[in-house]
Amino acid sequence: MTTGLLIVHTGEGKGKSTAAFGMALRAWGHGMRVGVVQFIKAEDGDWGEVRAARKLGLDWQAVGDGFTWLSQDMEATIARARRGWRQAQEKIRSGDYDLLILDEFTYPLNLGWLETDEVLTWLTANRPPELHLVITGRDAPPRLLEAADLVTEMRLVKHPFQRGVQAQRGVEF
Amino acid sequence: MTTGLLIVHTGEGKGKSTAAFGMALRAWGHGMRVGVVQFIKAEDGDWGEVRAARKLGLDWQAVGDGFTWLSQDMEATIARARRGWRQAQEKIRSGDYDLLILDEFTYPLNLGWLETDEVLTWLTANRPPELHLVITGRDAPPRLLEAADLVTEMRLVKHPFQRGVQAQRGVEF
Repeated sequence: MTTGLLIVHTGEGKGKSTAAFGMALRAWGHGMRVGVVQFIKAEDGDWGEVRAARKLGLDWQAVGDGFTWLSQDMEATIARARRGWRQAQEKIRSGDYDLLILDEFTYPLNLGWLETDEVLTWLTANRPPELHLVITGRDAPPRLLEAADLVTEMRLVKHPFQRGVQAQRGVEF
Repeated sequence: MTTGLLIVHTGEGKGKSTAAFGMALRAWGHGMRVGVVQFIKAEDGDWGEVRAARKLGLDWQAVGDGFTWLSQDMEATIARARRGWRQAQEKIRSGDYDLLILDEFTYPLNLGWLETDEVLTWLTANRPPELHLVITGRDAPPRLLEAADLVTEMRLVKHPFQRGVQAQRGVEF
């Protein structure tokens, strides 16, 4: 019996998105139907995971513009996030997926661009029971944690930036 | 400038191995040379990640027999772990990898099948400076944490097993 789980990866540490991508890889290995919507990263970003997704033929959409609260054009950034959520809603409702990842989705929730309660109410009404939905990002709202089946907090114990090492290809991006 | 990092994913929560597999996917997307040695899982296991690795043509070895302290033939299980470490040593020393993952490697260390100090001394002497090495598993030994550049603890906040939901394909395995 399969029960779709609502899964949250949160915390200040690394591995929130990366573990979701690992789940995508694993599910893809099983022949499951996998989709990813990235809410912050821009479509033209040269990320290892986007390259990999292209090679694998995964359904992978980056709907952000690379900005959050630093955006020069806040209205456009907010509109993008809302459009991304509508696209995610279509995917969720379609029944075409076994695993769907909403990467960095806590940011539009925390920044007030989307209403957490509305999102959760919509999910309760529309999520197919078998769909595994993974939401990643820092500071997951308490209401989301309550609604989730599985929550992991990635806690930063030690980071090389602390001793001045730069971001490394394949590790950070 | 690339500096190989010694990375540890530990803690009781989910996502330790999965985040490492996400890193493998990302690095593979960048065209980097990726290797995985799984210390507990058995070669004949039908894991999503092993299937995916086969499809991707990743160098992926499962050297365990699926057992740890539950083994019926403890000597054989220990011998397997030690053979796995020798294989990992060859890979590390070869210079043929940009990213190497030693999955669930904390178990043979914690169970005393391998000496943590010896492993760390050997790594200091033999790890190519550009190689990113990722070690996953619960209860990473303190000496390993000291030696690591990047440590993330995956903390379990909420798990569906707590309310009786079974392991789900694509999520748990």
